[in-house]
Amino acid sequence: MTITTPLSSTERSTIHRLRERGRTSRRDLHAVLDAGLVCHVGVIVDGAPVVLPTGYGRIGDVLYLHGSSANRALLAADGHEICVTVTHLDGLVCARAVFHHSMNYRSAVAFGTARLVTEDSERLAALHAVTEQLAPGRWDHARLPTRKELAATAVLALPLDEASVKVRNGPPADDPQDYDTDFWAGVLPAALTFGQPEPDPALRQDVATPAHITAMAGRARGAGRLA
Amino acid sequence: MTITTPLSSTERSTIHRLRERGRTSRRDLHAVLDAGLVCHVGVIVDGAPVVLPTGYGRIGDVLYLHGSSANRALLAADGHEICVTVTHLDGLVCARAVFHHSMNYRSAVAFGTARLVTEDSERLAALHAVTEQLAPGRWDHARLPTRKELAATAVLALPLDEASVKVRNGPPADDPQDYDTDFWAGVLPAALTFGQPEPDPALRQDVATPAHITAMAGRARGAGRLA
Repeated sequence: MTITTPLSSTERSTIHRLRERGRTSRRDLHAVLDAGLVCHVGVIVDGAPVVLPTGYGRIGDVLYLHGSSANRALLAADGHEICVTVTHLDGLVCARAVFHHSMNYRSAVAFGTARLVTEDSERLAALHAVTEQLAPGRWDHARLPTRKELAATAVLALPLDEASVKVRNGPPADDPQDYDTDFWAGVLPAALTFGQPEPDPALRQDVATPAHITAMAGRARGAGRLA
Repeated sequence: MTITTPLSSTERSTIHRLRERGRTSRRDLHAVLDAGLVCHVGVIVDGAPVVLPTGYGRIGDVLYLHGSSANRALLAADGHEICVTVTHLDGLVCARAVFHHSMNYRSAVAFGTARLVTEDSERLAALHAVTEQLAPGRWDHARLPTRKELAATAVLALPLDEASVKVRNGPPADDPQDYDTDFWAGVLPAALTFGQPEPDPALRQDVATPAHITAMAGRARGAGRLA
């Protein structure tokens, strides 16, 4: 699989409605995933869908999810189909007509069979990816996992073979007859934004806030639009 | 069902791990749902889970999701179990140990059997809730749906009988032996924040940005922590 390999051509990962919102480039898939912090993973437990938020990381074309090794939904997913969705809300689209209200967003939906990672070196690499996804630089500025901690962490791998990417951008699209009305229309942009770091009250007084944290403070996360 | 009715007592909606993060009050469930804009709905399609982002609204103890009446995943959910999850990311929790990295968040996970809303009056009420959830005030400042538009909208109802709410707040929790190290630890707060409104380029020049939009501009959405 290379960056030019198409995302997929299966029925469920093909955008049918509003096709102009669909993206089929792997580069766009990576961009949407890399900009995120929380994914929503769907698994089937006792015949019913369960959707859980969790952190994740990406290495090439494998997505890694992590959780406690006591997380039964995560463990139960091993060998089963899961769906992982990452969504960025970029704006509220306020149209003249209620019917045309919408949101600007970037979303990625990945389908596949989950595999519980059992090898320590892959688990460590996955935790590196998950930690760096949270805040680039953390891995080099924290105590690394012990064997016991590694064992207490469950890591699921999902190959990014089959996925769909959707993007909505730009102003509202109203019906022609509605443009000449008194109703306001436009977009209220939105972005996940970081505030100022709050040092742990128990932090040793002489430890300064490191550059990789101050670099994120006061900024929006992953607000970069796709081309 | 009243505000004092417990959320549920089923196995899947009971928090087992990190029980101190669980909330069982219906008030907390409502607060988490009301602060959100996007939910992730899990449905089973051809035996596999599918997780889709969508808008929603709440009326009392019923959650309404809406989408196009051509959205097959939404239509297929009628009469079947679904799971709807709303997650607010409130901060990145940077611990001294990689293992104790976490996120501050509020999340609600609701389980139940979806019902496709067929009655026009309930569909209209649901669209009102969905529209006002997006931006309070929109319903009174937009052209209301026609019969044809109503027919082109699929609305799913989910009774909020069975749900779980989880919250993580506050600083990292490291192991005792890690506190006296050079590693920085703390929280980088995060919130979905609105920018300044971008009027539709096709907006009539004499239409000013209304107060219900300017009231949201430059502010964080639903950043209120639970008690």
